[in-house]
Amino acid sequence: MLTYSFEAARSEPLYQHLYQCIKNDIMQGVLSPNEKLPSKRSFAKNLGVSTITVENAYAQLAAEGYVYSLPKKGFFVTDIRNDLSREKEKNCKREEKEQTEQKRYLADFTSNQTCSEQFPFSIWAKLMRAVLKEEREGLMKNAPCAGILPLREAIAGHLKAFRGMDVEPEQIVIGAGTEYLYGLLLQLLGMEKCYGVEDPGYHKIYKVYKSHRVPCSYVEMDGAGVVVSSLEDGGVDVVHISPSHHFPTGIVMPVSRRYELLGWAAKAEGRYIIEDDYDSEFRLTGKPVPSLQSIDVQEKVIYMNTFTKTLSSTVRVSYMVLPSHLAQQFRGTLSFYSCTVSNFEQYVLARFIQEGYFERHINRMRNYYHEKRDLLLKQIAGSPIADCCGISEEDAGLHFLMKVDTDIPDEEICRELDREGVRISSVAQYYVNPPEKKEHVFVMNYSSLEEENLKKVMAVFERVFARKRKKQ
Amino acid sequence: MLTYSFEAARSEPLYQHLYQCIKNDIMQGVLSPNEKLPSKRSFAKNLGVSTITVENAYAQLAAEGYVYSLPKKGFFVTDIRNDLSREKEKNCKREEKEQTEQKRYLADFTSNQTCSEQFPFSIWAKLMRAVLKEEREGLMKNAPCAGILPLREAIAGHLKAFRGMDVEPEQIVIGAGTEYLYGLLLQLLGMEKCYGVEDPGYHKIYKVYKSHRVPCSYVEMDGAGVVVSSLEDGGVDVVHISPSHHFPTGIVMPVSRRYELLGWAAKAEGRYIIEDDYDSEFRLTGKPVPSLQSIDVQEKVIYMNTFTKTLSSTVRVSYMVLPSHLAQQFRGTLSFYSCTVSNFEQYVLARFIQEGYFERHINRMRNYYHEKRDLLLKQIAGSPIADCCGISEEDAGLHFLMKVDTDIPDEEICRELDREGVRISSVAQYYVNPPEKKEHVFVMNYSSLEEENLKKVMAVFERVFARKRKKQ
Repeated sequence: MLTYSFEAARSEPLYQHLYQCIKNDIMQGVLSPNEKLPSKRSFAKNLGVSTITVENAYAQLAAEGYVYSLPKKGFFVTDIRNDLSREKEKNCKREEKEQTEQKRYLADFTSNQTCSEQFPFSIWAKLMRAVLKEEREGLMKNAPCAGILPLREAIAGHLKAFRGMDVEPEQIVIGAGTEYLYGLLLQLLGMEKCYGVEDPGYHKIYKVYKSHRVPCSYVEMDGAGVVVSSLEDGGVDVVHISPSHHFPTGIVMPVSRRYELLGWAAKAEGRYIIEDDYDSEFRLTGKPVPSLQSIDVQEKVIYMNTFTKTLSSTVRVSYMVLPSHLAQQFRGTLSFYSCTVSNFEQYVLARFIQEGYFERHINRMRNYYHEKRDLLLKQIAGSPIADCCGISEEDAGLHFLMKVDTDIPDEEICRELDREGVRISSVAQYYVNPPEKKEHVFVMNYSSLEEENLKKVMAVFERVFARKRKKQ
Repeated sequence: MLTYSFEAARSEPLYQHLYQCIKNDIMQGVLSPNEKLPSKRSFAKNLGVSTITVENAYAQLAAEGYVYSLPKKGFFVTDIRNDLSREKEKNCKREEKEQTEQKRYLADFTSNQTCSEQFPFSIWAKLMRAVLKEEREGLMKNAPCAGILPLREAIAGHLKAFRGMDVEPEQIVIGAGTEYLYGLLLQLLGMEKCYGVEDPGYHKIYKVYKSHRVPCSYVEMDGAGVVVSSLEDGGVDVVHISPSHHFPTGIVMPVSRRYELLGWAAKAEGRYIIEDDYDSEFRLTGKPVPSLQSIDVQEKVIYMNTFTKTLSSTVRVSYMVLPSHLAQQFRGTLSFYSCTVSNFEQYVLARFIQEGYFERHINRMRNYYHEKRDLLLKQIAGSPIADCCGISEEDAGLHFLMKVDTDIPDEEICRELDREGVRISSVAQYYVNPPEKKEHVFVMNYSSLEEENLKKVMAVFERVFARKRKKQ
């Protein structure tokens, strides 16, 4: 059996000395790869030390990868030259790389990314410096779960000025992204409730609910938004909608349907409407429609919005406005949570809004997108594909619909466009239960379109659509 | 019935004109508070416009608070001078104020807040400027769900250097706080599993599990940490522990118990150990114990740690290290989530770690806390309360235990200290099933203690403890 002297141990702990001795033997090849080490008990007896000493030495060797353990068999020397676990890690690495490496597209009409030149970097930097200098104490104090008061006040002011909403800062809850807030809402409203999501709709919302294993039901839509009878049929308790601008159809819910929905919610206790107002800031023409929250007098609407869409992923801040009784319940049951947005980002954003930069930024972005949209529409109108393409829902938000007159399946069109560097999705892809009427409508998310690529993109459209039509 | 002329409407939409007319009448008192407005249908007929026009006008009036609706009764004029909803909001406000207003304590031994002077503001500011300047494109690109690669690489490097852990960046998931990561883990491991938490333990962990409505079981502890037989008895699938430094008992789990736990986990598929390493950086004396993760060869340990504790709430960044197979599963099922930490904060923190500032900061903080602890212990040892107070578990993390020789109930001691401005909690408070042996042990979280108050705090201890002993 292995034997080491403990005379040289001096001041260091015994296990540390033993660890060093074994490690040296492994490094110098005295102990061979996959050789079994003595059992703890017999080794301890042999060395005249306690079992704990051997145990601790083995643990540290294992921790550093010099030995490995097999259940009920003991400890073995690692083959350092040919570590199997490396293989596993390599696989893991490759897989992640594949997932994060994105193909460079000429244009990606499925992405809602904006380009970095539009972000007001210098103003943001100025405000950051000011916050670091002037808010030191506030920065180090744990924020309430719902977020720091100055930011909630700023948001309330913004909602008043921009959306005509009368909201108290106490009703506002700030969080790191709407997806996180959905999770909080599930905890607030109950995991046993049935959540209704729009069909067609934004897949992510459904995924969040499913991932939390809550009952979830798809709700049918007509030209005015979700069909109220479908809520009753599906046994829905909480319905998640975006009445200001539905994705992907672009529908703006008319007032009559809004009242119908509020009526549905009022009929039973525990019914709620989640109003996802994700891109109401970018309504390009016409007066913005009042939010559902602002016509709700029965505390049935939970309003949600995000700054990530308007300001980019540099900031990750969203918020929800709870009806008073839910805000109270939130403080009672969920305020043990820490706010997920750092104090620093909250203070900077509060100033950004309060000092008027946010409004100016939105206005500038609205013009920027307005021009981008017009340019794209003009190109389409002036191109040979104009007579086979119909444009609709182009006034609200950052996407419009393009209906193409063809009898080739959507998937084939998408595939061919993709091959040529243009990524696009069809409305049909967002349906779980697609309508019988087969139309070829594509979602044109133009926010990330680079103008210098526009001519090339149009050429691709012409090639693909022309080919299609010849086949007819 | 009300009648308005539409001749003056000119270019504005009809509903807008009608809205303006009614609003004027409300403002001028022509329409009295609580007066019922005509039903939509009859009003529309009377005015010769469509019902939609009236509906839209009413909606906008309601949105702006000029009228309110009662279900099945119709619309009524709001009493603008005496708005009932204001009353409700006031209540809401007061309640939140009470919750956020914290009493100013002479010393708060229940808080883990650090003071702002310790945060390296100027270095942080420098790195922020550099990131804003040099990472523009990265800042605007959506990060992978698990976080940006440079930060995960920096964390892997830190874990290697500081904890001897061999971890691939692909195993790391970054999130806005450990509480958020607990929620993600529940979605990853399953909501139907039984989660075990330590008794006594940190209440928040239990609250997070309960709030997600997952089965949850308290696990008994002895002097070495959680008792393995108690895991079996409670039907636990996933156990949540902090082996490096348990709160509140301060126990550092010995190696033998660690292996016992790993053995328990290996016995059945789907069993996991969540290792919460929340303050291992602040072990004040002795070599840090290797993490449980580093001796786990069967992919059973999920390691968690946070920067919020080491860097303050200015940043809200935590991370977990998943075993390879769970990392793979995570990418498959949960990567649709956006990362909850803003790109900006991720880039700054990555540089902070990579450029060696984090290590220096930890070292400085460790010295700072070391001195603070020694000062407090010295004061206690030299004071009249020394003979009735026993100190233990003072080497790891930022709290120690103080056992007081008295027969007065803990609650009374806490109440009296509170009255004198010293906030303290007893170990018994952290138990769900307290042990039979009644000891008076208090948790001394000294991180936020201000040295200039130390003499006063000691005087309070002397007064309260002396009074107690006279009563005996």
